[in-house]
Amino acid sequence: MPDHPLIAAVDLGSNSFRLQVIRVVNGNPRPVTTLKETVRLGAGLDGQGVLTASAQDEALAALRRFASTLAGLPPDAVRAVATNTFRVARNAPDFLPRAEAALGFPIEVIGGREEARLIYLGAAHSLPSSRERRLVVDIGGGSTELIVGRQFTPLCTESVPLGSVSWSLRYFDDGSLTEACLREAELAARAAFQPFEVAFGARHWQAAVGTSGTARALLDVLEANGYSQGGICREGLARLREALLSAGHIDNVKLAGIREDRRPVMGGGFAIMAAAFAAFGIERMEITFGALRDGVMYDLMARRRAVDIRDRTVASFARRHRVDGEQAERVALWAGRLFEQLAPDEPGLRRSLSDVALLHEVGLSIAQADFHKHSAYLLRHADLPGFSQPEQERLAMLALAQRGQLVAPGEHDAQWAALLALRLAVLLHRARSASPRLPRLVLSRQGMGYCLTISNRWLAAQPVIQFALNEEASAWQKAGRPLHIHPV
Amino acid sequence: MPDHPLIAAVDLGSNSFRLQVIRVVNGNPRPVTTLKETVRLGAGLDGQGVLTASAQDEALAALRRFASTLAGLPPDAVRAVATNTFRVARNAPDFLPRAEAALGFPIEVIGGREEARLIYLGAAHSLPSSRERRLVVDIGGGSTELIVGRQFTPLCTESVPLGSVSWSLRYFDDGSLTEACLREAELAARAAFQPFEVAFGARHWQAAVGTSGTARALLDVLEANGYSQGGICREGLARLREALLSAGHIDNVKLAGIREDRRPVMGGGFAIMAAAFAAFGIERMEITFGALRDGVMYDLMARRRAVDIRDRTVASFARRHRVDGEQAERVALWAGRLFEQLAPDEPGLRRSLSDVALLHEVGLSIAQADFHKHSAYLLRHADLPGFSQPEQERLAMLALAQRGQLVAPGEHDAQWAALLALRLAVLLHRARSASPRLPRLVLSRQGMGYCLTISNRWLAAQPVIQFALNEEASAWQKAGRPLHIHPV
Repeated sequence: MPDHPLIAAVDLGSNSFRLQVIRVVNGNPRPVTTLKETVRLGAGLDGQGVLTASAQDEALAALRRFASTLAGLPPDAVRAVATNTFRVARNAPDFLPRAEAALGFPIEVIGGREEARLIYLGAAHSLPSSRERRLVVDIGGGSTELIVGRQFTPLCTESVPLGSVSWSLRYFDDGSLTEACLREAELAARAAFQPFEVAFGARHWQAAVGTSGTARALLDVLEANGYSQGGICREGLARLREALLSAGHIDNVKLAGIREDRRPVMGGGFAIMAAAFAAFGIERMEITFGALRDGVMYDLMARRRAVDIRDRTVASFARRHRVDGEQAERVALWAGRLFEQLAPDEPGLRRSLSDVALLHEVGLSIAQADFHKHSAYLLRHADLPGFSQPEQERLAMLALAQRGQLVAPGEHDAQWAALLALRLAVLLHRARSASPRLPRLVLSRQGMGYCLTISNRWLAAQPVIQFALNEEASAWQKAGRPLHIHPV
Repeated sequence: MPDHPLIAAVDLGSNSFRLQVIRVVNGNPRPVTTLKETVRLGAGLDGQGVLTASAQDEALAALRRFASTLAGLPPDAVRAVATNTFRVARNAPDFLPRAEAALGFPIEVIGGREEARLIYLGAAHSLPSSRERRLVVDIGGGSTELIVGRQFTPLCTESVPLGSVSWSLRYFDDGSLTEACLREAELAARAAFQPFEVAFGARHWQAAVGTSGTARALLDVLEANGYSQGGICREGLARLREALLSAGHIDNVKLAGIREDRRPVMGGGFAIMAAAFAAFGIERMEITFGALRDGVMYDLMARRRAVDIRDRTVASFARRHRVDGEQAERVALWAGRLFEQLAPDEPGLRRSLSDVALLHEVGLSIAQADFHKHSAYLLRHADLPGFSQPEQERLAMLALAQRGQLVAPGEHDAQWAALLALRLAVLLHRARSASPRLPRLVLSRQGMGYCLTISNRWLAAQPVIQFALNEEASAWQKAGRPLHIHPV
């Protein structure tokens, strides 16, 4: 059924892992399979921020179970994203490749703003159409995302590092529910939200929406006990607070509607929700089921229709940093031409090469001196909607090595080829103009290295470029991948 | 003679050190003393970029001779700047304090763009008034500065890391003057200039001006041999090239007008000048005597009239990064008030504290997450006209420690006080609004640490701030400088 392809979104959160497989029918998603594993990965961080061996094992086991469901899907039909615990775990670089092997697909560790964008996309698709501005609050296991948006457009996004798992561990570690510890947890959450109170305050939106497990679990309890008539409200939260305090310990809370798997993270989740109500002036919050994994899915569907948010991101980032667009286009064109000759079957890397070529000079907005280092810094750290952290890291590595000393761009042969294509394209356009027109260039592999075939006559008329090419050749010689310049 | 104060500018270049003392009479400089020492510091860098012990000793001896001339001048009447060799020497951090001790005054290592700005300022003051656009080329010992400007305003500035000392060492190390080595030196200089050929090309200016020793030495030789009628021209350079090649070795060049102290750097200086003529389409270049140290002097005179270029820099940098100006002003006001109470006699640090308060959120333009780190990165690396590199480093350290973990801002007690003032000002304005109005705050020293006296009643009404202050107190406790919160 090639007209009705299967696609899958995987969301590796700090509280749970989720998998959703859908079939795209006439551009709309039809659910096929949904899996959830409450791994609580965020609780597997030890005091040094390292994921313990047992937490890793549990996560890998869950990923292997997901793998059996994903088996057979083509690579571009699956997008797996990982959030806060992967962002902060100090041993994530070691764990990530093992997790990818277990899942059988690449895993993108996404930044907080990208997470917020995807959450909003998921939420917006699950809500009735409306012209109101909405505040979406997504209390996750390790971070809370805040978005003000309208229809399908997020207008303001933030990610705040507090979540139900981390807050429960920090303030309710022994399960006690006292006025003192509840108050401290609420105040700490207020303090964390405080810098965002103005930007996400009630004058910026007409309706508040909650997504994800914490919000749904709270709503279930409020409704089951008659504390709510649809949605979470202030009064219901106050009544729930009384009930929690009179139980005195999380194990003694006997309220209807509590799911046992939510009990360990109830204290932290409640404190954060109460703080969000106070911080942003929320009176009532509706709950929706659309969230991160739905956003991932809609984003993947859009990419497959060649509507790639990354194109818009690259263009607006270049504009913001006043990149010389003509120069960038020239470098991108030639980098692509050269790379195709060495590695025609690397669409992912080809895409990154094009992105970095269009953005390789963003660092000039900081300073001329060492601008390639500044480009790398910006590409590594900036909020780039649609890009995952490893993608940004790849752009940063290429930008850093665009000139000067040769720094290994990665382990793979194709990464070296991309770097060579980029450096040659930059070198050949140092004059920053469309003239002289470049001759035909043939780039091929030769032994451990490469060979660039170029018109002798053209080269003789361009002594500065000839000089620079010879310097380039000796840099590659030193790096153990000789570049042979072959004039014909 | 308090109405006619003495001021001094010191320029620690890669080829020579210069000192100029002037008396300011009716706002105009009157020369008093001029000293020059050809230290050739740039030649004292070994293969690893480390300043050798003997080069350090020679430099220190020269600085001690300068010190005897400067003795008795007040600190704000002296500005000493250091350029490329100090920028690149890997042991500069160790050498700099020793150099300052020898000179008896602080030394500012300035960035290439700041150097270019000051050179232009010096050159503009030494040239007849004109509405033409000028290209100023300053070939120094370690770097070459390029400026296009009009009247007293630099419009476009660059610093390219090639200079007469470094080029002579690299291409004419044994003194040979052959066609091959001259051609290689010229091509390498062309390659270094190439990225700037368009921006500094002849269509952007009407007159070219050379400053500093290399240009003057070349002009002297051209004039003494009848190769020039005022100024350096293409034909004169071509005839000099022939003469150099026919001598075959730098020691055999018998041309009139050669000063012996310029002979060792003649090869590199010539190659760079020839490349600059070709790269930027220069036909004829006038020479002026005004250069870096004059620019430093005029800048110092302006600062003493309270016209500080740094104020304009801070304002425009904040604007470019879309800083929330109201929030920045609030934080700057309160940081200043708090700091005055602890360290009333630190005008330099007070100035930095105000600058960093106005710019502490620039990093938000990169990303929300870890924005304080991005602020520090920008403040460390951006071209900030009027700021020296150590000043930028101080701003970066304060910006980095503005929140979160306490990082030592420096060794001095007053630096800790500045950090405390900044952190408290940030904390007290987390709500990002003018309300609630802050009460009277009294900050004082207490034992090894500090005491903040604050209205109990106000605090009781602000539980979130109270919570944050208690967290702040415990961070300072851990850093060994306890902060006592004292409600009254």
